Amino acid sequence: MNPQLDPYLYEQIANKIAILIEKKTFRPGEKVPSVRRLSLQEKVSISTVLQAYVLLEDRGLIEARPQSGYYVRLQRRSLPPEPAISSPSLSATSVNVSELVASIHDTIARRDIVPFGAATPSPELLPIRKLNRILAGIARDSDGEEHSYGIAQGSEELRHQIARRAVDFGCTFSGDDLVITFGCTEAINLCLRAVAQPGDTIAVESPTYYGFLQIIESLNMKALEIATHPRDGICLEALDSAITKNTVKACLFATNFNNPLGSCIPDAKKKQLVDLLARRQIPLIEDDIYGEIYFGTDRPKVCKAFDKHGLVMLCSSFSKSLSPAYRVGWSAPGRFKDEVRRLKLMNTLSCVLPTQITIAEMLRGGGYDHHMRRIRKAYASQVQNMAEAVGQYFPRGTRVTRPQGGFVLWVEMPPAVDSLELYRKALQSKISIAPGSLFSPKQQYRNCIRMNCAHPWSEKIHAAIATLGRFAHECAVL
Amino acid sequence: MNPQLDPYLYEQIANKIAILIEKKTFRPGEKVPSVRRLSLQEKVSISTVLQAYVLLEDRGLIEARPQSGYYVRLQRRSLPPEPAISSPSLSATSVNVSELVASIHDTIARRDIVPFGAATPSPELLPIRKLNRILAGIARDSDGEEHSYGIAQGSEELRHQIARRAVDFGCTFSGDDLVITFGCTEAINLCLRAVAQPGDTIAVESPTYYGFLQIIESLNMKALEIATHPRDGICLEALDSAITKNTVKACLFATNFNNPLGSCIPDAKKKQLVDLLARRQIPLIEDDIYGEIYFGTDRPKVCKAFDKHGLVMLCSSFSKSLSPAYRVGWSAPGRFKDEVRRLKLMNTLSCVLPTQITIAEMLRGGGYDHHMRRIRKAYASQVQNMAEAVGQYFPRGTRVTRPQGGFVLWVEMPPAVDSLELYRKALQSKISIAPGSLFSPKQQYRNCIRMNCAHPWSEKIHAAIATLGRFAHECAVL
Repeated sequence: MNPQLDPYLYEQIANKIAILIEKKTFRPGEKVPSVRRLSLQEKVSISTVLQAYVLLEDRGLIEARPQSGYYVRLQRRSLPPEPAISSPSLSATSVNVSELVASIHDTIARRDIVPFGAATPSPELLPIRKLNRILAGIARDSDGEEHSYGIAQGSEELRHQIARRAVDFGCTFSGDDLVITFGCTEAINLCLRAVAQPGDTIAVESPTYYGFLQIIESLNMKALEIATHPRDGICLEALDSAITKNTVKACLFATNFNNPLGSCIPDAKKKQLVDLLARRQIPLIEDDIYGEIYFGTDRPKVCKAFDKHGLVMLCSSFSKSLSPAYRVGWSAPGRFKDEVRRLKLMNTLSCVLPTQITIAEMLRGGGYDHHMRRIRKAYASQVQNMAEAVGQYFPRGTRVTRPQGGFVLWVEMPPAVDSLELYRKALQSKISIAPGSLFSPKQQYRNCIRMNCAHPWSEKIHAAIATLGRFAHECAVL
Repeated sequence: MNPQLDPYLYEQIANKIAILIEKKTFRPGEKVPSVRRLSLQEKVSISTVLQAYVLLEDRGLIEARPQSGYYVRLQRRSLPPEPAISSPSLSATSVNVSELVASIHDTIARRDIVPFGAATPSPELLPIRKLNRILAGIARDSDGEEHSYGIAQGSEELRHQIARRAVDFGCTFSGDDLVITFGCTEAINLCLRAVAQPGDTIAVESPTYYGFLQIIESLNMKALEIATHPRDGICLEALDSAITKNTVKACLFATNFNNPLGSCIPDAKKKQLVDLLARRQIPLIEDDIYGEIYFGTDRPKVCKAFDKHGLVMLCSSFSKSLSPAYRVGWSAPGRFKDEVRRLKLMNTLSCVLPTQITIAEMLRGGGYDHHMRRIRKAYASQVQNMAEAVGQYFPRGTRVTRPQGGFVLWVEMPPAVDSLELYRKALQSKISIAPGSLFSPKQQYRNCIRMNCAHPWSEKIHAAIATLGRFAHECAVL
């Protein structure tokens, strides 16, 4: 097989080795085939094998030992294994998950419920006092200009502050490249409407954030699920094949710490993704809403950083990091900017001014960096605690993801467990979870749940996980 | 002709008499035919003629003199005559006016421009100090709950306050009947999407607010213009005929002080409109954004007040009365509430909390009534001043509307004047106007302009109207 013809060969090889590790053909601590041997065996170049092994390192499956070769990593004992790469259906689907989603969203306001359901940040990890002080100051001083309709594109100062910080994730924007929106939700709506029509097919990760499916549903578009790895995101080979066989109008992917898997596409793979889509002129709507909440040392880049053709429409918001209630999001829509701005004017005219200016002030010198350092640490530890507790209480055979950012965990239970049943049981005990079938237009993942880990660890949360585990055991037996 | 078969016969008769008044067959001060004589002449009932004469009274064309009959009213000398009822094209059209609209909207932020273009309220007539004080207080005290995603339907307290006040315009709501939105713009978007699909035909007034046309355009729907009278709004006969000949999926009308005409459908006619549409199960999306800014003694009712079948979807906002920058609007979508709430969740998730709570507080006891009394007087006087100045400076043959509420004026210039040409000339002299062709999907009304009268009368405004008048003369000669 000629690697020129199949640029994602290394991904196939990595998946092959991953399956062998999964099946314990290679056990933890054992050596995997040498680069040279695998190259001969698979009839591929040395560099392809090296790429495959780097990917397996990224996935946390193997580790390089100097002068010795690659070894299967020892898993931390307390954590259950990771889920495998997804294998979604290959045809596009009309979507309908909205009623269940609405009922989960409505639990947000209920203080009596343990909030593992909606992916809301913890109020204790929002800079509330700081934001309050800034907003109060702005409110006191607002004049007529600040009470008028703003321009559709949004506050100039806020756009400037976002552009200034975009260098951190590899982008060189001017404020004029951006459009401010009501949260990432409006940004994704406008981007989708700018590049696709009702009836068109949109490629999404599998599993994917149910909010994406809802938006696609509300716009009468179709969703096409693409196999996605829980560590390094969308499978390029599967994507390449899908866009060859289908007319895909746009892709909608969360590239960094996606919801629900927490997967993060390695930067080198991001570049390949951008190149792949550019060859076919398919726009990528890139959701980076969790990108700032990374647990490692470096902020991952975004696909937009590799975009030479204006085809990547980057979307994000401050709802996970600063305040969901302020509804401040934004988009860098590349070559589709004028269309997105036009749609913004028609959808909601312009954004709320006082909250935009408050966020701008927070970014300018209001302690944003200090705040982010604090919450990254907190979320990393909470996700770890939650994963360990799931390992402790859930039935044998349960798997959990290893998110390196964000604050949600994906839990794959044994096939006998029906997560809708678990959802109903849990809600009766005032525990909210998000059942897995929400995350697929074909309602796959019936034995999975997504858990929000945003809330600081407490005895109440610990006990709720124990209760969930007990219910999961009961469901598994039935 | 049997009046049973044609419930809007009285409107036809009123229009016939109006034309005779227009042509000076009946001059100001002269008596129009007696009720008895007209009844015999037109072979209609006495009550039909009486209804026609009440309508002509509402339009300000005739007045009743006790024991004597009906007479053509003496026009106030300083005002040019009113425009006639519109006669739009009878087929639906795809819409495309967005570029020009975006350029007009962008002038809002420019302080060097005399703002007759966009329909923005004057900052001097917004309760800025009061709102600032309330928002600052709310900001200081916000806790975690007020920084979380709110529920999609919006703040409960705000919905309660709106429901409490809805009695003033004839509606008995509970807070649960309402959905809070980002301005009236989002409300109308969601309502349209709840009841119609791309390709469907929406009936609109002619002329109609260009924002409606933009929304219809952005949703790939079609607009069908219905003849509209500058005083009493949509022509029921024309509407009846249009919905007989076309498959109309919904109507989108501004029933009180519509933009741009300032027409207000008399309450009795509102009931007929609701009944007409109910017979065919056609939803009415009712924009009441100017309803609170009435110049007379009584708040006009809304069509929603006569809605027995949940088919009227009332939409409004506080952007004209309190603060455009807060982006607080709402809808009472009747039987389509669940669908509108669902679409709200998908479009923007939920609304900004601090501004919602500020508006709620303003309505609860923050001096809303006092404020509204003040601005009603101010806008009434400014509209009158503007109309008089247009009469003074614009070419002979110019007509202006007689709005009884709101703050826009519709100016119909002689047919030779091209308002796009006037728009460009005016903008060079830093005066913004809204050219008439924006207000029709077929780009009729090329010789008309809409003028925003929201800004307090000043020498600068006076001089700008004189300049516009001069330009209009020049355009008329070319």
